[in-house]
Amino acid sequence: MKCRVCREPAVIDVRRHNANFCHEHFLRLCRDQTAKAIADFSMIERGERVLVAVSGGKDSLALWDLLIELGYEVDGLYIGLGIGGYSDDSGAAAQAFASDRGLTLRVVDLRRDHGFDVPTAAAVTRRVPCSACGLSKRHLFDRAALEGGYDVVATGHNLDDEAAVLFGNALRWQVEYLARQAPVLPAGAGFPRKVKPLVRLAERETAAYCVLRGIDYQVEECPMAAGNKHLGYKEALNRIEETSPGSKHDFYFGFLDRLAPLIQTAAAEARPDLAVCSSCGAPSSGEVCAFCRLQERTEGAEAVPVSLGRARKRPRP
Amino acid sequence: MKCRVCREPAVIDVRRHNANFCHEHFLRLCRDQTAKAIADFSMIERGERVLVAVSGGKDSLALWDLLIELGYEVDGLYIGLGIGGYSDDSGAAAQAFASDRGLTLRVVDLRRDHGFDVPTAAAVTRRVPCSACGLSKRHLFDRAALEGGYDVVATGHNLDDEAAVLFGNALRWQVEYLARQAPVLPAGAGFPRKVKPLVRLAERETAAYCVLRGIDYQVEECPMAAGNKHLGYKEALNRIEETSPGSKHDFYFGFLDRLAPLIQTAAAEARPDLAVCSSCGAPSSGEVCAFCRLQERTEGAEAVPVSLGRARKRPRP
Repeated sequence: MKCRVCREPAVIDVRRHNANFCHEHFLRLCRDQTAKAIADFSMIERGERVLVAVSGGKDSLALWDLLIELGYEVDGLYIGLGIGGYSDDSGAAAQAFASDRGLTLRVVDLRRDHGFDVPTAAAVTRRVPCSACGLSKRHLFDRAALEGGYDVVATGHNLDDEAAVLFGNALRWQVEYLARQAPVLPAGAGFPRKVKPLVRLAERETAAYCVLRGIDYQVEECPMAAGNKHLGYKEALNRIEETSPGSKHDFYFGFLDRLAPLIQTAAAEARPDLAVCSSCGAPSSGEVCAFCRLQERTEGAEAVPVSLGRARKRPRP
Repeated sequence: MKCRVCREPAVIDVRRHNANFCHEHFLRLCRDQTAKAIADFSMIERGERVLVAVSGGKDSLALWDLLIELGYEVDGLYIGLGIGGYSDDSGAAAQAFASDRGLTLRVVDLRRDHGFDVPTAAAVTRRVPCSACGLSKRHLFDRAALEGGYDVVATGHNLDDEAAVLFGNALRWQVEYLARQAPVLPAGAGFPRKVKPLVRLAERETAAYCVLRGIDYQVEECPMAAGNKHLGYKEALNRIEETSPGSKHDFYFGFLDRLAPLIQTAAAEARPDLAVCSSCGAPSSGEVCAFCRLQERTEGAEAVPVSLGRARKRPRP
């Protein structure tokens, strides 16, 4: 197994590129693919201030590292979700990464700053924890970016993530969700621009990138996500990718090329006009935004242990 | 486990309907679902002559039986594909079904009538056998319907089939294929109308229908299809259906409801104008149609055994 570029011994094969790479040229591949995604979709201009959403996992730390390597000005934001030891370890990985490199990591703690955590929110709302988690992260990243004067929020969604979300949306043909599934969401109406510079890299590649760069990341998957549908979609696509390498890439980029343009108009018409949350000022489809409603509902609720807030299957009637 | 309708002991559970059924009410469910598909999509008018494409498998024999039960005037057409013992057994099942019920079964034999068979065509063209097989069946069913004065060709594609084809087309976002994926293709330009009355029934249900109706069908899967991508798509969807019953139904019918209308125009513009095959008179995008070209290419080729014409994976370069 030899590197496609230099013919020295390779450390990784990338089947969808039908090629193997040595240490040095694999890192270059990751940088090139990230730079290409940024350029192709006009994600970030030179001189813009970037806030990267840091979970402490492989994707977000690889992203932060890659953006710094590519010469961007990037701070991190970590949100403490209160998911027991998993959150403690994730936060520590994010902190260590930042302090080792002299980078700025902002921290918001759900419990300390907003009076609740994800397990408690899941128990109170009786919904899957991923719902309260995603909602809180979106809200707090948007707010931090606007308050901190950042031009753009970057998230570590990789090709596997985006293909799985696309699959889930296609399974239900949720046209308005499909139409919003782009590697860039432009700024507007109280939202910062949001970009996903890792869409050209697979999960296995961001993990290998971290290993080769000596980045210590949180290896565990979130204990509350176990059994969620998103993971099922990933598994289904993994099997297809195994038989036909490149399937995920074609699925995601073929969608952007060929289907997305056909559904933009229809989806735009379906989009609700946004007002402003009377409590926090964030864009909201209702009088009070979903985050403030969640904060209100969980006020005074006793903290529950992680196990009680875990992903549940809806019982069959 | 009790029947949803009469509370007598049930013989089958249908998870996506969240219900169990006894012998009698399961057969009624199958008839009702078939009648609903025919009505919802205006597939067949009373008094029209129907030609059903009969393979000898569970779907096509269930379809023929159901259409007769629903009072339609239906003849069958069986095409001998020359796939060794598999074809012999399939043909025998189709013949037995027809003669037991005094129905008319027309027979075309690829080797006898057109000088080749599927294994030989696969070997000569060096393509997967499903390619020559599908092309020959489409061509010969169209021709037989027009020559025999039938108004409509009915095929046994079930919900699993249609969902898997949709998944394959969505994985590549082949918009022109997606746009043609409907339970009815109207007649026109030398083609008869084509309908799929079993789209509301799953594979497991057509099999159970045959068992309960005492229909002997070819149980084996085609030996040449083993390992093809379509089966991989079915497997992937089966796993998702297991976790979330009804997913396949929502995937297929959600597509018809919400996506198909958005892509019709774009796809129609991409459709090539059809001429007439100079050899057989069938509609064709070229001077000679694909079937006549296949017949020409295989002329004089020595018959190959089934094993040599088997599905091949394209070797990786």
